[in-house]
Amino acid sequence: MSSVESTKPYLLRALYEWCADQGFTPYISVQVDAHTLVPRQFVRDGQIVLNLGTEAVQNLHMGNDLITCQARFGGAAQSLSIPVGNVSAIYARENGQGMAFEVGDLPAEPAAATEADAPETPEPPPTDTPPRPHLTRVK
Amino acid sequence: MSSVESTKPYLLRALYEWCADQGFTPYISVQVDAHTLVPRQFVRDGQIVLNLGTEAVQNLHMGNDLITCQARFGGAAQSLSIPVGNVSAIYARENGQGMAFEVGDLPAEPAAATEADAPETPEPPPTDTPPRPHLTRVK
Repeated sequence: MSSVESTKPYLLRALYEWCADQGFTPYISVQVDAHTLVPRQFVRDGQIVLNLGTEAVQNLHMGNDLITCQARFGGAAQSLSIPVGNVSAIYARENGQGMAFEVGDLPAEPAAATEADAPETPEPPPTDTPPRPHLTRVK
Repeated sequence: MSSVESTKPYLLRALYEWCADQGFTPYISVQVDAHTLVPRQFVRDGQIVLNLGTEAVQNLHMGNDLITCQARFGGAAQSLSIPVGNVSAIYARENGQGMAFEVGDLPAEPAAATEADAPETPEPPPTDTPPRPHLTRVK
């Protein structure tokens, strides 16, 4: 079944749409590596949290393989590119509700509810402290 | 946060779309009660498994509150109506991949991967024996 597309990009789009419909701000947590094009100055412990809200990014495309958009950091426009496989969580900034995913070469483990999967900071642009996300982990 | 819409209808639509894009047959498992309009002769142990594929149902609408469609059972057309809250799983018939949900007044428990959540039979129209679903349970 190696040719079967992952459900992950479908779930990411679904939760993004849910956030938008609720008036919530969609955040994604990303495991940064050589394949992620993100502002390195906001990376902490190999992770970055990005605000994908319409007020924060332009030209957002959430494809089956890549999430791409443009955003401004410190006044400078930058193109972002994130492989779907690097996304470790998507959640609403306002209440932390969302979903976490296994990323990379981590050992397989049963899916479990977790509050400790996504870092709280940094998020561009920083505004105030969001609640800790409470996420359902999906392999 | 009681006014926040559940993510569940968004996830159901996402997995339905994933099934369609993969050429898979989307099955849902439903907990039958007074609010579900389904063919009672296929209910087993309070559950029914329905094929929502385009070859099996017409006028499918997967709303935030209700899933509605028309289907034929034994040659007779019937309207189906299923509250989203009654859906206990959605998965691809061909490989069992999908997602399970807590339904009704079951006690809350941590989300967990499971292979035992959805019954294997009956499914209308029956064709052959699908694989057991392997699902990620979501509260």
